Amino acid sequence: MRTFMNHQSEKINHILEALPYLINYSGKTIVIKYGGAAMVEEELKASFAEDIVLLKYLGINPVVVHGGGPEINSLIKSLNLNTQFIRGHRVTDEATMEVVEMVLTGKVNKQIVSLIQEKGGKPVGLSGKDGGLAIAEKYLMEVEAEDGKSQKIDLGLVGEITSVDPNIILTLQREGFIPIISPVAMSKEGQTLNINADTMAGAIAQALHADKLILLTDTPGILIDGQLVTGLKKVDIHGYIKTGQISGGMIPKVECCLGAIDSGVKRAHIIDGRVPHSVLIEILTNQGIGSLIEQG
Amino acid sequence: MRTFMNHQSEKINHILEALPYLINYSGKTIVIKYGGAAMVEEELKASFAEDIVLLKYLGINPVVVHGGGPEINSLIKSLNLNTQFIRGHRVTDEATMEVVEMVLTGKVNKQIVSLIQEKGGKPVGLSGKDGGLAIAEKYLMEVEAEDGKSQKIDLGLVGEITSVDPNIILTLQREGFIPIISPVAMSKEGQTLNINADTMAGAIAQALHADKLILLTDTPGILIDGQLVTGLKKVDIHGYIKTGQISGGMIPKVECCLGAIDSGVKRAHIIDGRVPHSVLIEILTNQGIGSLIEQG
Amino acid sequence: MRTFMNHQSEKINHILEALPYLINYSGKTIVIKYGGAAMVEEELKASFAEDIVLLKYLGINPVVVHGGGPEINSLIKSLNLNTQFIRGHRVTDEATMEVVEMVLTGKVNKQIVSLIQEKGGKPVGLSGKDGGLAIAEKYLMEVEAEDGKSQKIDLGLVGEITSVDPNIILTLQREGFIPIISPVAMSKEGQTLNINADTMAGAIAQALHADKLILLTDTPGILIDGQLVTGLKKVDIHGYIKTGQISGGMIPKVECCLGAIDSGVKRAHIIDGRVPHSVLIEILTNQGIGSLIEQG
Amino acid sequence: MRTFMNHQSEKINHILEALPYLINYSGKTIVIKYGGAAMVEEELKASFAEDIVLLKYLGINPVVVHGGGPEINSLIKSLNLNTQFIRGHRVTDEATMEVVEMVLTGKVNKQIVSLIQEKGGKPVGLSGKDGGLAIAEKYLMEVEAEDGKSQKIDLGLVGEITSVDPNIILTLQREGFIPIISPVAMSKEGQTLNINADTMAGAIAQALHADKLILLTDTPGILIDGQLVTGLKKVDIHGYIKTGQISGGMIPKVECCLGAIDSGVKRAHIIDGRVPHSVLIEILTNQGIGSLIEQG
Amino acid sequence: MRTFMNHQSEKINHILEALPYLINYSGKTIVIKYGGAAMVEEELKASFAEDIVLLKYLGINPVVVHGGGPEINSLIKSLNLNTQFIRGHRVTDEATMEVVEMVLTGKVNKQIVSLIQEKGGKPVGLSGKDGGLAIAEKYLMEVEAEDGKSQKIDLGLVGEITSVDPNIILTLQREGFIPIISPVAMSKEGQTLNINADTMAGAIAQALHADKLILLTDTPGILIDGQLVTGLKKVDIHGYIKTGQISGGMIPKVECCLGAIDSGVKRAHIIDGRVPHSVLIEILTNQGIGSLIEQG
Amino acid sequence: MRTFMNHQSEKINHILEALPYLINYSGKTIVIKYGGAAMVEEELKASFAEDIVLLKYLGINPVVVHGGGPEINSLIKSLNLNTQFIRGHRVTDEATMEVVEMVLTGKVNKQIVSLIQEKGGKPVGLSGKDGGLAIAEKYLMEVEAEDGKSQKIDLGLVGEITSVDPNIILTLQREGFIPIISPVAMSKEGQTLNINADTMAGAIAQALHADKLILLTDTPGILIDGQLVTGLKKVDIHGYIKTGQISGGMIPKVECCLGAIDSGVKRAHIIDGRVPHSVLIEILTNQGIGSLIEQG
Repeated sequence: MRTFMNHQSEKINHILEALPYLINYSGKTIVIKYGGAAMVEEELKASFAEDIVLLKYLGINPVVVHGGGPEINSLIKSLNLNTQFIRGHRVTDEATMEVVEMVLTGKVNKQIVSLIQEKGGKPVGLSGKDGGLAIAEKYLMEVEAEDGKSQKIDLGLVGEITSVDPNIILTLQREGFIPIISPVAMSKEGQTLNINADTMAGAIAQALHADKLILLTDTPGILIDGQLVTGLKKVDIHGYIKTGQISGGMIPKVECCLGAIDSGVKRAHIIDGRVPHSVLIEILTNQGIGSLIEQG
Repeated sequence: MRTFMNHQSEKINHILEALPYLINYSGKTIVIKYGGAAMVEEELKASFAEDIVLLKYLGINPVVVHGGGPEINSLIKSLNLNTQFIRGHRVTDEATMEVVEMVLTGKVNKQIVSLIQEKGGKPVGLSGKDGGLAIAEKYLMEVEAEDGKSQKIDLGLVGEITSVDPNIILTLQREGFIPIISPVAMSKEGQTLNINADTMAGAIAQALHADKLILLTDTPGILIDGQLVTGLKKVDIHGYIKTGQISGGMIPKVECCLGAIDSGVKRAHIIDGRVPHSVLIEILTNQGIGSLIEQG
Repeated sequence: MRTFMNHQSEKINHILEALPYLINYSGKTIVIKYGGAAMVEEELKASFAEDIVLLKYLGINPVVVHGGGPEINSLIKSLNLNTQFIRGHRVTDEATMEVVEMVLTGKVNKQIVSLIQEKGGKPVGLSGKDGGLAIAEKYLMEVEAEDGKSQKIDLGLVGEITSVDPNIILTLQREGFIPIISPVAMSKEGQTLNINADTMAGAIAQALHADKLILLTDTPGILIDGQLVTGLKKVDIHGYIKTGQISGGMIPKVECCLGAIDSGVKRAHIIDGRVPHSVLIEILTNQGIGSLIEQG
Repeated sequence: MRTFMNHQSEKINHILEALPYLINYSGKTIVIKYGGAAMVEEELKASFAEDIVLLKYLGINPVVVHGGGPEINSLIKSLNLNTQFIRGHRVTDEATMEVVEMVLTGKVNKQIVSLIQEKGGKPVGLSGKDGGLAIAEKYLMEVEAEDGKSQKIDLGLVGEITSVDPNIILTLQREGFIPIISPVAMSKEGQTLNINADTMAGAIAQALHADKLILLTDTPGILIDGQLVTGLKKVDIHGYIKTGQISGGMIPKVECCLGAIDSGVKRAHIIDGRVPHSVLIEILTNQGIGSLIEQG
Repeated sequence: MRTFMNHQSEKINHILEALPYLINYSGKTIVIKYGGAAMVEEELKASFAEDIVLLKYLGINPVVVHGGGPEINSLIKSLNLNTQFIRGHRVTDEATMEVVEMVLTGKVNKQIVSLIQEKGGKPVGLSGKDGGLAIAEKYLMEVEAEDGKSQKIDLGLVGEITSVDPNIILTLQREGFIPIISPVAMSKEGQTLNINADTMAGAIAQALHADKLILLTDTPGILIDGQLVTGLKKVDIHGYIKTGQISGGMIPKVECCLGAIDSGVKRAHIIDGRVPHSVLIEILTNQGIGSLIEQG
Repeated sequence: MRTFMNHQSEKINHILEALPYLINYSGKTIVIKYGGAAMVEEELKASFAEDIVLLKYLGINPVVVHGGGPEINSLIKSLNLNTQFIRGHRVTDEATMEVVEMVLTGKVNKQIVSLIQEKGGKPVGLSGKDGGLAIAEKYLMEVEAEDGKSQKIDLGLVGEITSVDPNIILTLQREGFIPIISPVAMSKEGQTLNINADTMAGAIAQALHADKLILLTDTPGILIDGQLVTGLKKVDIHGYIKTGQISGGMIPKVECCLGAIDSGVKRAHIIDGRVPHSVLIEILTNQGIGSLIEQG
């Protein structure tokens, strides 16, 4: 029995290690961008759903913003939609946008809702359109033209958030519901626009004055010369971008984090969604996981 | 100026005609099944959205449950899904259910949300999965077998509601939001099931102890021998079904109304969705519209 | 049936014309000075009461301040009260003040309360004395003496409001009651004072930060050279007073409106109480009625 | 200084004698019928107003229902109204009712409101018409006809309360206001009816489930054979009425008390309004004052 | 890094094992009798305080009732109090009671308060006297006299609880405070009485309709023939008492548990306070610890 | 009967004399330092308890901070504790502190709680440790060394308050409980420290923005040349201290009062606790008692 007890005590010690974090995050809001492998592999999907439900029972308010995953392309393919490309970027025409919205809001979102409900939570799926949550406007990509001048390219129904009304999220949180948000928003003119999920998560974190913004990625975090950097300040990041040590797809992610931090979010994290329970590991353990970006 | 004033006064008299109905329905909940032509023609869509927004500003709580319209079949066709048919009924397999859910929740629902928001309301789209709103179980259609015995046919992922938790609707209503609900629900085992929109509306009306259930149809109401009957009691309906004067697609609609009335909903209406503003006409004018079914 | 439906739809369109105004005024407070013909003719009395009840059910908060009408003089006459006159102004002595208060608070106020209750509202009659609503002090009329100097004339128990405590009005509004207020107030020393109903309405509108102040009159509005002017700014009014185009009894009315607007009331209206439903016409129709005075 | 201190301590002991009563009545409602000498003599008026204000500050909720006093007759006389009499009872025709309402609601009520406000309370004057407080119907007096049969006499606009909606009183109490109520009510048909102030107080005490009903009279209480009886039970009273030891104007008063007690009011008192501070003496001292009627 | 991650995931899995218990106990109240070794050894004291703080952050409401430990005897000895003994039981005279109360309420209670505050909780120390929490009466021990008859022995100021008013506990819980209660109560006559801590905990659990009552002891639980029995029903216990397999000091403990269960407490536990974190192990792990007594 | 009535009226007049004070102090908080003779003599103890209960029922919020009285020394003596003295000051070592805390929190505090409960109040005993009420740090006494320089003397576990969190007091007040506070607090490091009761009362009065701070003493108030001074301003006090007219034990009391006044407490009083009901006399009578210190 001693051994059994020792094992029990070890369990409890692991729970108790979380106590200072519970005290610290009690009643706080954490916005999580959910996507990549964590949204594809069955085990990771289950562990993510458990994390979200546990956070809610621990008195923390998680808000999930999800991406689209590979399902959008798959449906576009099945429908043989003709897609125009400009400089390598797919143009989102109306037919494509319809597919994007159906998959994001009608399929991916509901799969997440189902899974979290099975684990014991009370999720409510929303898109940016619901309850007037997010207003967007068309985004024109700025590129360098052949003559060296700046040029704006119209990629179709792609938008960026111009304002967020957090009332619907707060209403749901107060009653114990967990908001699961798909990155689609409406323009003032009533157009449906596709939004980058990272920046949607960032904008919502700002509007909620969230305590944390967590971006789940398919990398261990921010890698500099192949090494994970666990803590970075604003100045570090600007330096690494200049030297090209942060580049490619990581740039919009760190910029989204910096934007959130500049607007009052306390901490932003880029973590490895491929590790089971990475969200809980980040929030409840001493070592955390991935890269933390802080003001400074 | 007199004429102008007369015209103004006439307007105001029309508004005042609504006063007793406002007094009567103030703070009450009205569940509306939205579908058919009213969900297809642009003018009718706009007039329906205006009706819903106006009701909310008049202090009445509308809850909209929508059907799927022709869009589901259109996407199924585009995707060349093989559909099995049993005795003339399409079997909803998983691939089909996925399409049904995407179209209902990701397309039709969001179109209604967009339109109502444009008219000045604060709609929030839900499916039966959100906030644990509705739990369903597989529905087996009972038919007469060739040997004359009763036989149950499995039509696949088709369900009927077994319980409704109205908390998410009440939470949204309290804060001024308008719930727009797509007829999809989850079974206890986590299966996604397609629900008949009329019966979904009926089940939600029961759970909310709604004051009214309104089914929008593409007929003027209940026609007996080609004549609209404006008021019917339970006994009348049983009689008309026996004599075959109520038949075909109208039978499930009147049964849904009777079920609601037996469970505490005060009045059920089958009205003509092809008439612009038919919802407001029903609620706010002396004559009303369509057929009223009452206890008795 | 088509014709019937067209007629129904026309009704509903008239109601829908009001929708933007409902959205705009939802939850707002509108103070209405009620008097003149609208308080004498049976049809106008009934239409006014309907307007007030409808506004309340539309989610707008009306506050009614009424004048005295011809009933005060009639009772003074019946009682053969000797009245002193100074420079043509009747002096309000104690016996007269008693009659004024009895008629205003015990007769006119209660008639309005009765009528609004019959129409389905929940009115509560108040005078400025109730709940410490209004504190006044004696008003001395400044006139030019024979020697050209300014001279103050004591007209007896006539007062002007020095402070308003809106708590009793807010308490009643929160519970769905409609305050009906008679223009009598108490001085700090406990004297009962007669207050001009227009300025009482203005002072209450200020204290409530009302959205609108509406003065019902027996003219179509502000007439300049015999023509109704539908919109005026502050500067316009000062000009018209200088040129004498606004004169006589209209001067205190426009000054009361200007005072309200200077203190935060958004819009002030002088409208024709002789037109049935003039209050609703002003609030709920595109064209409005009478003259609007705005900041500028 | 000792003597001064002894005097101070005596004061404090008198205050402390009230402590058990404060504990007992904290948060309770006490309905007081105010009338007679207490409403006429200046000193008694002032002492009554002080009592009401003190009760409110002591955490007790007083509700005052007042009678009319001699002022009604005086105004009727001044106006030379012709009054019809039937079997010695004045018939209240419309002209008389108008005077009654003006005096009660526009004069007497406002005098009480003024006085209580001067003493530091926040009174709000109401009649039974305000906020739908009381609904009445015409009262037909049953008398014995000459042939010995029972006969009903129509005394005009005299009514008896058929229902009380206490919501307006509770709304005012919650915000610290003191309701002062004049005994006028409306019938369902909109007629204004004069109500006996004792029975109005009794009906309101019932609707509020008041802890105490206190009737102020111009006698020391219930006198039996010239002796004050300080405590009576229901059976005692029925006996005294049979023997004629309770008779005349005291009968309706004791019946009003019995009615209140039968409907849940805990205690009813008939006390001497001619004694300064009789209300406080009743509530806060060991000996009390007047006659107490209890269930039994 | 894999190994590190495996370790982190194991931690998280231990936390997640608690999820079903969190869902189950969220918002529930658990009363814990604290005493014995757990209140003496430094490590156990610290682990107990951590358990209590963690429970509160997990959304569970712990209520702690403590015993006195060895400190009472130690102070009695230092003060050389003469103690009378009757049949081997110490009689609690006034001088002794004073010491008991001082030690329990002024020393032991405050030590627990200090420790829990250091760990991050918001404890508030109470005795049964505070906020009128517990009323007790003198307890007379029933023994068999030499002549075989039943005899009552007066052990002095020893009491048993006759009523509990849980309002002070509920008030503190609502605001996030943790009540720590010492087993002293007052009789109606104002006498201070010493209460057995187990029965005090049981009485409070009953009054709060607690979900669980946990008695910390210095044994592994209920031992029958030297073996721990992890689950017992009422009938089992009555049997074991008859056979003498439950005896001595364990009898009052199981009787206290049975009393609580009969009065609506769902589960009662007798667990080993010598195991660090035994409270958390009981509440949050699959295996639990000690003996569970249930209705049946 | 007249005489009886006159006596009753006199009583009531004494109560009414308190009315302006009730109006003024309604809902306000008054912090009272309780100690000296008032905590020793039976009659004074009873009268103090009555005062506190009455204040609460009068709608005023009393907070009691008590001292230790002679009981601490008596227990120290009984335990033969060796006490070190430095320059005539007793050093509070750990053993002494334990006794101090036990007596203050476990004996004196509970006696006050018992007495106030007997009188009908709902007292809750707290020490500065409960609910994180007060944080203190060690206090080093500054004295002049032999060489004329300033020197700090460590008197052991004596502290001064560095912060007060009034939330636990406000929580109790809202529910009608009366906080009784013993002057013990914890340092950030978890040390138990003894606090001067006067300064503890002052610090709590500041944190609560109390309306009044009352120090009960065993003198008539502030005596200057043997004469009671009933009202003093800040400048007066500084003068009297310079001239030595205020000296000795009165200096810390007036400094505590000045500190409170500088931090927003409206009035501070030093009154004679030897006079029965001195607290009520101060608060509810025209003449008051003792010395009042005001800003100025």
